[in-house]
Amino acid sequence: MTRTTHRTHRIAIAPSGFKESLSAARVAEAIAVGVRRVIPDADLDLIPLVDGGEGTAEALALAGGGRLVPVTATGPVGEPVASHFALLGGPGPLTAVVEMAAVAGLALVPPGLRHPGATTTYGVGELIRAALDAGARRILVGCGDSGTSDGGAGALQALGARLTDRHGRELRRGGGALHELERVDPSGLDPRLARTELLVACNPYNVLCGKRGVARVFGPQKGATPAEVELLSAGLERLAAVLTRDLAPAFAPTSGAPAIDLRTAPGTGASGGLGAGLAAVGARLLPRYDVLLDGLDLDARLARADFVITAEGALDHQTVRGKIPAEVARRAHASGVPVLVLAGTIGPGAQDVRAVGVDAYSAILPAPMTLVEAIGRSGEFLADASERAMRIMALGTRLAPLAPLAA
Amino acid sequence: MTRTTHRTHRIAIAPSGFKESLSAARVAEAIAVGVRRVIPDADLDLIPLVDGGEGTAEALALAGGGRLVPVTATGPVGEPVASHFALLGGPGPLTAVVEMAAVAGLALVPPGLRHPGATTTYGVGELIRAALDAGARRILVGCGDSGTSDGGAGALQALGARLTDRHGRELRRGGGALHELERVDPSGLDPRLARTELLVACNPYNVLCGKRGVARVFGPQKGATPAEVELLSAGLERLAAVLTRDLAPAFAPTSGAPAIDLRTAPGTGASGGLGAGLAAVGARLLPRYDVLLDGLDLDARLARADFVITAEGALDHQTVRGKIPAEVARRAHASGVPVLVLAGTIGPGAQDVRAVGVDAYSAILPAPMTLVEAIGRSGEFLADASERAMRIMALGTRLAPLAPLAA
Repeated sequence: MTRTTHRTHRIAIAPSGFKESLSAARVAEAIAVGVRRVIPDADLDLIPLVDGGEGTAEALALAGGGRLVPVTATGPVGEPVASHFALLGGPGPLTAVVEMAAVAGLALVPPGLRHPGATTTYGVGELIRAALDAGARRILVGCGDSGTSDGGAGALQALGARLTDRHGRELRRGGGALHELERVDPSGLDPRLARTELLVACNPYNVLCGKRGVARVFGPQKGATPAEVELLSAGLERLAAVLTRDLAPAFAPTSGAPAIDLRTAPGTGASGGLGAGLAAVGARLLPRYDVLLDGLDLDARLARADFVITAEGALDHQTVRGKIPAEVARRAHASGVPVLVLAGTIGPGAQDVRAVGVDAYSAILPAPMTLVEAIGRSGEFLADASERAMRIMALGTRLAPLAPLAA
Repeated sequence: MTRTTHRTHRIAIAPSGFKESLSAARVAEAIAVGVRRVIPDADLDLIPLVDGGEGTAEALALAGGGRLVPVTATGPVGEPVASHFALLGGPGPLTAVVEMAAVAGLALVPPGLRHPGATTTYGVGELIRAALDAGARRILVGCGDSGTSDGGAGALQALGARLTDRHGRELRRGGGALHELERVDPSGLDPRLARTELLVACNPYNVLCGKRGVARVFGPQKGATPAEVELLSAGLERLAAVLTRDLAPAFAPTSGAPAIDLRTAPGTGASGGLGAGLAAVGARLLPRYDVLLDGLDLDARLARADFVITAEGALDHQTVRGKIPAEVARRAHASGVPVLVLAGTIGPGAQDVRAVGVDAYSAILPAPMTLVEAIGRSGEFLADASERAMRIMALGTRLAPLAPLAA
């Protein structure tokens, strides 16, 4: 065999976490293990990424020299849960990260209680108050993996707003009650909100109302029946109308920016409409990656790589709608850097990712098995699949260029 | 994007069939579908391969312009089964292919009846007689996927030999009775055998007796308990001794070649010892690929390719012990042609295939599922996995050579 001369490859490993299984940091490490089996001297740049959902507070605390603050707060079904927020290190105003999934995530809703008409974001408001108590002057709210569809109504209540029906009674918990909303009284709202920068990291594809409104798109996977989806949709319409009428005068943007449309502005549908609820009290809804990738220098690190490996638990039609592999691919592609995705599962529509800059993707499962087993062994499977993909790629480096891939 | 100039790639697709799922021809076609999605102008050479087991008679009939002859014969548990043998076209003596799996294969043994002590190769003898009736002067017996462990005793009985116990009674069916064997009387054997070339396509790794004897290696997967394995081993020892004593004088090799040791010669353990039984009546045991690849011009076709794709239902520690991907890799490697394996499942020991010339392998499953679903959708999964592997390889062709793969 002739030995080909080679130089060390620079590989950026920029994955998402695998839901209910591995944090982004663990995913990146597993991929690196597989790569090193094939290219022991590879120059690896591990860039674990979060999207605002599960694990975001912990990841940002780790990355930014901060810490997690434990808080017991109201969970999505009303029971107290052990939750947390992060206080970040670094200069500038004291910044907190409130991860909605850590207090109102779907994983906190027992499967038998998955009625999104009844779950609440009350705990999100409590975490925001706890962050204010800790002195935070800037609060990032991470959205994603939510188990609620209450339009942030619960969070507003926890922050001191009164939401009442036509009899003047406090509205009961959950999105299922929103169609009875008559009035919002902001007079009891925590006054510290007015002097705090509240930034919501959203998937801008998620909007509150309309044909692709959040109840219709995500209600079913949170456990809603078709009738419940319609009730939730009507309730969120009602919430948007009342919040616009009763809160807009008090919380007009001071920046001179126009007020957003709570029904349809990008991100209003984030986390079952939490985006809209917080926007109504002055929060800014920002594309999540603009917030979450701040300080990572991601574009430059991807551009330096010979190729990029990213990963996601499930690669499917939702991936192009703002998931991490799509964001990584878009950025890497802009620098002409090829992108490989390793996926826990490949579902319908996965091939759409090629349009946003993914060159190739691979599944990680070695054999038929249950989802539970797959989740339990995902670290091992990722390392092995990473190795296998590297060997296929290495085989490719020995060939003349294949036909251009453009369709 | 700059368009890289390229020439058409020559790709040899030389897979095994997937057991209980797809014939080798269907596997090759599915892989080709995936390749063409990435390299529409690829120059593909489809070389479906068989190993002597399930599908061998049909594949050779298709490849050689022959036909299948239906025969009703005795199945492994004694019930009649609809079986067949092949008559090949082409010049030379009329050649038949008797596939043992088509009349005594494990798939013909109902799961509740998987007692290898009780199953018989009687039908194999019947198929050989049917081939003789059809005028065959040359008979290839394909081994593999057997459900028997009777050392070919049943086949010998069907061919006219009398196998008796110490009371002179005909031995009952199955390997479990062999320890009672006292004498073999060859006087009733079909006289046409003496003027017929009987070639057995064996895995040479399979031997009848000893530590890696066939009862010990394959008995458990055919349903034998540890005690049954020991009984079978003792029976096969007995069979080898009696056959050597009673038949060797009548069937000494006429070619001048030395008689083989029925206990340990390569291939004697093929298909539960069918190799040994047939060798005792003059059959030649040949490495299966020497027989089955005859006329395919395989080495030259692999050598012409830029790379080779092969495939197997399960890639594991048995693969290097004579399975098709190992054979293909060994031959391709000899010409310096890289080899990729697509596997239905990847099991323990799969990495051993790298030592025989496999450069890379990949699993085909996109998501967690049952084996039954995986088998039902294997064609679709193969095509998709082939496409995914081609895209990873294509990504590789855009990179500088990776570190040499040699360990």
